[in-house]
Amino acid sequence: MRPYEVIRAKRDGEALSPRDIRALIEGYTAGQIPDYQMAAFCMAVFYRGMDEAEMAALTDAMLHSGTVLDLSAIPGVKVDKHSTGGVGDKVSLALAPLVAAAGVPVPMISGRGLGHTGGTLDKLEAIPGFRVDLSIERFVEIVGRLGVCLIGQTREIAPADRKLYALRDVTATVESVPLIAASIMSKKLAEGIDALVLDVKVGRGAFMKSRKDARTLAGALAAVGKRAKKKVVAVLTAMDEPLGLAVGNALETAEAFDVLRGGGPRDLVEVTRELGAHMLVLGKKARGLEAARARLDALIRSGEALDRMRRLVEAQGGDPRAVDDPARLPRAPAMLPVRADRTGFVTGIDAEEIGLAAMSLGAGRDRADATIDPSVGIVLERKTGDAVAKGELLAVVHHAGTDAARAGAAASRVRRAYVVGARKPRMRSKILEVAS
Amino acid sequence: MRPYEVIRAKRDGEALSPRDIRALIEGYTAGQIPDYQMAAFCMAVFYRGMDEAEMAALTDAMLHSGTVLDLSAIPGVKVDKHSTGGVGDKVSLALAPLVAAAGVPVPMISGRGLGHTGGTLDKLEAIPGFRVDLSIERFVEIVGRLGVCLIGQTREIAPADRKLYALRDVTATVESVPLIAASIMSKKLAEGIDALVLDVKVGRGAFMKSRKDARTLAGALAAVGKRAKKKVVAVLTAMDEPLGLAVGNALETAEAFDVLRGGGPRDLVEVTRELGAHMLVLGKKARGLEAARARLDALIRSGEALDRMRRLVEAQGGDPRAVDDPARLPRAPAMLPVRADRTGFVTGIDAEEIGLAAMSLGAGRDRADATIDPSVGIVLERKTGDAVAKGELLAVVHHAGTDAARAGAAASRVRRAYVVGARKPRMRSKILEVAS
Repeated sequence: MRPYEVIRAKRDGEALSPRDIRALIEGYTAGQIPDYQMAAFCMAVFYRGMDEAEMAALTDAMLHSGTVLDLSAIPGVKVDKHSTGGVGDKVSLALAPLVAAAGVPVPMISGRGLGHTGGTLDKLEAIPGFRVDLSIERFVEIVGRLGVCLIGQTREIAPADRKLYALRDVTATVESVPLIAASIMSKKLAEGIDALVLDVKVGRGAFMKSRKDARTLAGALAAVGKRAKKKVVAVLTAMDEPLGLAVGNALETAEAFDVLRGGGPRDLVEVTRELGAHMLVLGKKARGLEAARARLDALIRSGEALDRMRRLVEAQGGDPRAVDDPARLPRAPAMLPVRADRTGFVTGIDAEEIGLAAMSLGAGRDRADATIDPSVGIVLERKTGDAVAKGELLAVVHHAGTDAARAGAAASRVRRAYVVGARKPRMRSKILEVAS
Repeated sequence: MRPYEVIRAKRDGEALSPRDIRALIEGYTAGQIPDYQMAAFCMAVFYRGMDEAEMAALTDAMLHSGTVLDLSAIPGVKVDKHSTGGVGDKVSLALAPLVAAAGVPVPMISGRGLGHTGGTLDKLEAIPGFRVDLSIERFVEIVGRLGVCLIGQTREIAPADRKLYALRDVTATVESVPLIAASIMSKKLAEGIDALVLDVKVGRGAFMKSRKDARTLAGALAAVGKRAKKKVVAVLTAMDEPLGLAVGNALETAEAFDVLRGGGPRDLVEVTRELGAHMLVLGKKARGLEAARARLDALIRSGEALDRMRRLVEAQGGDPRAVDDPARLPRAPAMLPVRADRTGFVTGIDAEEIGLAAMSLGAGRDRADATIDPSVGIVLERKTGDAVAKGELLAVVHHAGTDAARAGAAASRVRRAYVVGARKPRMRSKILEVAS
């Protein structure tokens, strides 16, 4: 079929053949199919969706638009984790060395933050000297030696996805489950992994606002993974309030180090431990989730997890002393307290608002080409369920000290993000459900 | 709103403001908004539609992207007719001089054929010397002098529509009622008319296959016209079998001349007379439809209509002798008979198949830049309801004589387009309903 016919078929709700989907993606990547036809196609997919076979074909075509890593020389079941993105989500930073310490190779290619959500690469770069732009060869070498390496998407990985994502971003076609699933899975499958744990975030601070939508996305991701003969486990986790206490790059990196030291906020530890346990089971380093959790706890207690982090930082050009001494991470020169204006219990913290407040301080990007300040951010002093008295600290805004009005506006935004009520709310686990 | 936000709002089913629609069309025409954003927008409109206010704003923006003719110096109510296109539809050729002869000025800007349907311009150009590419000034002068002129869309008329139509054509977004309505009405309103009669074709040979869809389009066209303060009457006419007997440019032109001479096939006369009667009433040259029909019949009987045609042909550079002598029109050198393979009654003739057969002979275009042969085509010897004996003529294929296989294939296609049954079918009027 010609591109016109492919668009029309999808427009009218017909399922496309793998051959047609491949021709479309190959033609688009080669510049033979123009942006305007692909834009019309994406909008038709937005309304009509794709079945599993179509999603798998789209993922496969995008995956093979570039280099697919071959990690078969590295022994063991290679397992990665991917998060659909949230506020305060620094899980990857602690999880990758922790799981690697258990003997599961973790080849992780991550992204940068955009909008109210942060990105793993930005958090890693808060570590002085840390490089995320390593070559594929160096990446493979470090994964082989340390069992873990974290880099950014290179030009060789899924170029079709990069081109298509840029188009979707300006044509209001980002919010489409099959297009999201193919985008995520094409990049992850290009890493040469055997299995994948997906952290699908649900709630006000996440891309998927409802449990139903998150379940749909998780199902699509799992289906694509299975058709590519990869083991996939999707964990739905709550993203109504930020994860952990720190929001902002260096602040979050320090918090991730705390988790590896056996500390860290309870919710962050819970999510890290649960995702890690699934990775160990998939990586055949534990017989079940209980054994896996115990193994992870032991690696933290023994210091092996923290040591793996030090070696990882060093291997990627960073200063390993920053792992033990947070003073070596960038620190904002000024702080502004955010205080409660009534007594009661915190019943909710709007994660999106906290994320936008951090972005406004310079912690995140409103455009893809914006630069960020690694030191700034917000540290929550109270989380949902905590008691607070009028005048007590809710949070602290860490800012550059050069723009009092901006800092004040961010502080007001943080205060508005907090809901303080008379009754202590029921506490719920961040782990909502597991699909595989 | 930025273009991205306009696309997203339409994608999510929101109604757009006239201001946003105008900015979108102005930005697109000026080349500031790229094709890919407009393609995504058109696909969103395909699914979400537009309300009357949005269609009116879109039409108005496209109309004002170019020149809007001012015919106020010409006395009388200027009335045009537009057909949504069918097979054998040569109504405009007879109708325009006929109505002009009744004193109603008819400033008609027409199109070319594409796909299985023919175009008025191609039929006119079958007349030796006839020019359809006159300047706006010459067009206005001829309308003022003769009350009628037929030309093609110039570069000054609705350039936004030309650019948008070319984009829709390659992004599978042609089949959208609000986009069709804005496209038609922006061009027609640019002619400087006061009123418009629309011939909305319904059936297998038409763009609108069902009565319901045709009614929806007629309603949209009428609504846009009313909001632009123009009187609009929409007539739904049947397009299951071809209109009249001739399909192919010179053949159709000769048939249109027959109508002005008081002859011509019954169904073609019926449609021409009905549309003309509405034009006379809108043009205030008749008090009602009955009086209008009588006036048209008188103009044909007296020879005034045919004389107006001769003067029109002459004014546009053509040979007026062709009006009286069909031998002066291009004639195909070869003919191939199509015969019935059973005895019975013709119960249907698939207009789309006949149109495609004619196109395959060179009478029409499969691409916008294809050249056509004015002489070739198909003449139906039997129409729906006619009795036929096995071996008798159903139709005659007029062909170039250079490709026997192609002519044979066209003849087979014509034969397959005929359905011959045992019972005489109920005869129905081609006029299905009138909406205004």
